[in-house]
Amino acid sequence: MSQLFAVRMDVALPPDMDPAARADLLAREKAYSQEWQRSGHWKNIWRCVGEYANLSIFEVEDNEQLHQILWGLPLFPYMTMTVTPLAGHPSDVHLG
Amino acid sequence: MSQLFAVRMDVALPPDMDPAARADLLAREKAYSQEWQRSGHWKNIWRCVGEYANLSIFEVEDNEQLHQILWGLPLFPYMTMTVTPLAGHPSDVHLG
Amino acid sequence: MSQLFAVRMDVALPPDMDPAARADLLAREKAYSQEWQRSGHWKNIWRCVGEYANLSIFEVEDNEQLHQILWGLPLFPYMTMTVTPLAGHPSDVHLG
Amino acid sequence: MSQLFAVRMDVALPPDMDPAARADLLAREKAYSQEWQRSGHWKNIWRCVGEYANLSIFEVEDNEQLHQILWGLPLFPYMTMTVTPLAGHPSDVHLG
Amino acid sequence: MSQLFAVRMDVALPPDMDPAARADLLAREKAYSQEWQRSGHWKNIWRCVGEYANLSIFEVEDNEQLHQILWGLPLFPYMTMTVTPLAGHPSDVHLG
Amino acid sequence: MSQLFAVRMDVALPPDMDPAARADLLAREKAYSQEWQRSGHWKNIWRCVGEYANLSIFEVEDNEQLHQILWGLPLFPYMTMTVTPLAGHPSDVHLG
Amino acid sequence: MSQLFAVRMDVALPPDMDPAARADLLAREKAYSQEWQRSGHWKNIWRCVGEYANLSIFEVEDNEQLHQILWGLPLFPYMTMTVTPLAGHPSDVHLG
Amino acid sequence: MSQLFAVRMDVALPPDMDPAARADLLAREKAYSQEWQRSGHWKNIWRCVGEYANLSIFEVEDNEQLHQILWGLPLFPYMTMTVTPLAGHPSDVHLG
Amino acid sequence: MSQLFAVRMDVALPPDMDPAARADLLAREKAYSQEWQRSGHWKNIWRCVGEYANLSIFEVEDNEQLHQILWGLPLFPYMTMTVTPLAGHPSDVHLG
Amino acid sequence: MSQLFAVRMDVALPPDMDPAARADLLAREKAYSQEWQRSGHWKNIWRCVGEYANLSIFEVEDNEQLHQILWGLPLFPYMTMTVTPLAGHPSDVHLG
Repeated sequence: MSQLFAVRMDVALPPDMDPAARADLLAREKAYSQEWQRSGHWKNIWRCVGEYANLSIFEVEDNEQLHQILWGLPLFPYMTMTVTPLAGHPSDVHLG
Repeated sequence: MSQLFAVRMDVALPPDMDPAARADLLAREKAYSQEWQRSGHWKNIWRCVGEYANLSIFEVEDNEQLHQILWGLPLFPYMTMTVTPLAGHPSDVHLG
Repeated sequence: MSQLFAVRMDVALPPDMDPAARADLLAREKAYSQEWQRSGHWKNIWRCVGEYANLSIFEVEDNEQLHQILWGLPLFPYMTMTVTPLAGHPSDVHLG
Repeated sequence: MSQLFAVRMDVALPPDMDPAARADLLAREKAYSQEWQRSGHWKNIWRCVGEYANLSIFEVEDNEQLHQILWGLPLFPYMTMTVTPLAGHPSDVHLG
Repeated sequence: MSQLFAVRMDVALPPDMDPAARADLLAREKAYSQEWQRSGHWKNIWRCVGEYANLSIFEVEDNEQLHQILWGLPLFPYMTMTVTPLAGHPSDVHLG
Repeated sequence: MSQLFAVRMDVALPPDMDPAARADLLAREKAYSQEWQRSGHWKNIWRCVGEYANLSIFEVEDNEQLHQILWGLPLFPYMTMTVTPLAGHPSDVHLG
Repeated sequence: MSQLFAVRMDVALPPDMDPAARADLLAREKAYSQEWQRSGHWKNIWRCVGEYANLSIFEVEDNEQLHQILWGLPLFPYMTMTVTPLAGHPSDVHLG
Repeated sequence: MSQLFAVRMDVALPPDMDPAARADLLAREKAYSQEWQRSGHWKNIWRCVGEYANLSIFEVEDNEQLHQILWGLPLFPYMTMTVTPLAGHPSDVHLG
Repeated sequence: MSQLFAVRMDVALPPDMDPAARADLLAREKAYSQEWQRSGHWKNIWRCVGEYANLSIFEVEDNEQLHQILWGLPLFPYMTMTVTPLAGHPSDVHLG
Repeated sequence: MSQLFAVRMDVALPPDMDPAARADLLAREKAYSQEWQRSGHWKNIWRCVGEYANLSIFEVEDNEQLHQILWGLPLFPYMTMTVTPLAGHPSDVHLG
């Protein structure tokens, strides 16, 4: 059984962060994100135009798994999350 | 060339609407939505759990086409829209 | 597998509603709520003091089931919902 | 006599906090929370999925006791609190 | 044992309400309020200057009693409530 | 002639403030508050449960006096103020 | 003794109001406003550009008088008020 | 001398408006807008994608003229306005 | 030709600012404000009671001049501005 | 094919930034902005009166290009962006 969630992540990095620390942090974030994308649980990630933010779609076993994925993000301490649980829509042509 | 947009649509129908008028309106909405889904421009539609709202992803030629699709929705006069233009994300495993 | 959600429901009934229609609506709401409480899926319901609102805890199979329960509420057309998905907390004495 | 309250606690720790100081703070927070949970006054604590936040239910003697419990939290200086007093709901199957 | 609460009540009466129905409603509201004031539970009521709103202080047995008092207000269906539970302040000269 | 005002004060002290400086600041705040309470102008001060905030009632000569009292608070640079001017309420049993 | 207040009044008249009733209401509002302007208590009234709103400055005896003036406005049931008590500013060239 | 202003106009027409009255209203709105566009004072008008709203740029003699143009809009009673006064930007390549 | 504007300025100085730097900054702010007051362009300045904020009325040649005055304020980097363009009100007894 | 967008950029520079670093940053911002203005993609830039903010109109190939332009701004880490996609308005005299 799998559950869908939309998550918007807004990032606020301090502008005066050490460049090397920042580069390392972003490299780890990218690797972590891609690992979960390849697992099939992080289905989509899009940039919100003009903002340091993304909109992502997750397909997970349960609430617990979604929380563990998000909590483990290297950028988590710098992020504000908006989590929206999703369900099938009766107008979806792919359903029934 | 195609553009991606996330659109959240919140619906507020008057509770005392005539049931036949309401049923007709919803039937037209569903047909209209499915026509655009089949065209490939309305790529996803999900129900936001517990709310009379959906989150949708559109892939359109340009801003103009997106506006025409949304403006033409039979439920448009009862909807509040939140439109977010999307771009590719550098961590997306499907890019590059 | 079960998922926990907190849901706050704010009710806005028109003050000039027909008293009999209102009484009928509230009776159906109560019966519907109690049926789901007895099923074990609607675990708690509390009144928010001084407000026409409740805070409820649901334990459901998945997002879909939660949506169907909430969407079916007789008072749904008069409600504003705030849905918060929950997970286990590492400080919870009942976990591990 | 006992009173029920829902409390949402949003935590904002500075990302550059000293790791040892942070670990000590979190250990003290966990011990403090578990002590009050074992007393029966802190009835539930759930993680809000994807957020550094929890939703908790307290059963206390009075407003004063709730304030003392919350004020004494080691993480209190880093928390934003939302306190909702609760009462019995007429649809609750466990009430008369 | 008694608990203190501050409650702000914002009133929104439809401007086209029947004058006699309105006068009756306001007379019942005043009588109801004064009965609870005389009981000692509704300790203060002030008008918020320039607004159809009041700020009140209640001293009640428990959350349940406060809810019953507020829920029973003849104007309740037209009110938006903001409830703040209060406790003693360490700087209060009347405390210890 | 005297005027009533409700003032909510939300305090945000930096968590890493020097403990001695903090203790001194809070001692001066308490002394200042109690001096104005004893003068009769600061009629009530209550703790908002679970928050570093208070709700206070002032009875002052005029707007100017209220501003001078608040501006002089040792904690003023760390406070966010919400000021509500009050008047007599027609339902108040103590009025006429 | 006199007190200064800034009051912003936002007006929301129903678009389908009977034209004669509307004209009468606005004529009474204007007469009422001008009477208080001539008394010296309603010192300034400006239109907020592009909005059905005004910003006004009042000089009154006390909070009570301000409330009575505002409460008596023929448009009061259609208005949302924002009241800001004012005091002298230390940089004002007209003060000392 | 001329002044620039950005104005966002959000329109909320009742969904059950009489179709003929609505068509007449919109025709008058269009004629009125185009007359001011041709005068050179209403320099730009764009549709906000997916919303019943526009963003417009005005070049007017003064605040008074802008208010008269906006106040005279046939749709004014159904509009919420956001007015932003503009000035030259030091990075503008067309300035000096 | 002159234009009227209301401007609310909210000030947020860091509490740990160097006292001498702060005193110098405030002295320059006062001198700057009084120079513009004496020019007749900064017509009024009032303290918002209990807040580090002022409400001011400006009479300027045009938007450009208002921006230059505000931008030049020594406290500008610490201020949040709310600018409201004003026009004559049809009920103003001083207008025709 | 080109797309129009309105973008409001609010800037928050730390008041204690090193003056030379600040001057360099602003010089690079100006050069970057003017380069894109000369390309024809950044069609307008206006100062929002009294605020460290601008309102700009962009004409770009697609969402991707807009994001790259904004993301590349030297001031980007200090900016909050509000992006509004635009389409042609049926009342625009310049459209067919």
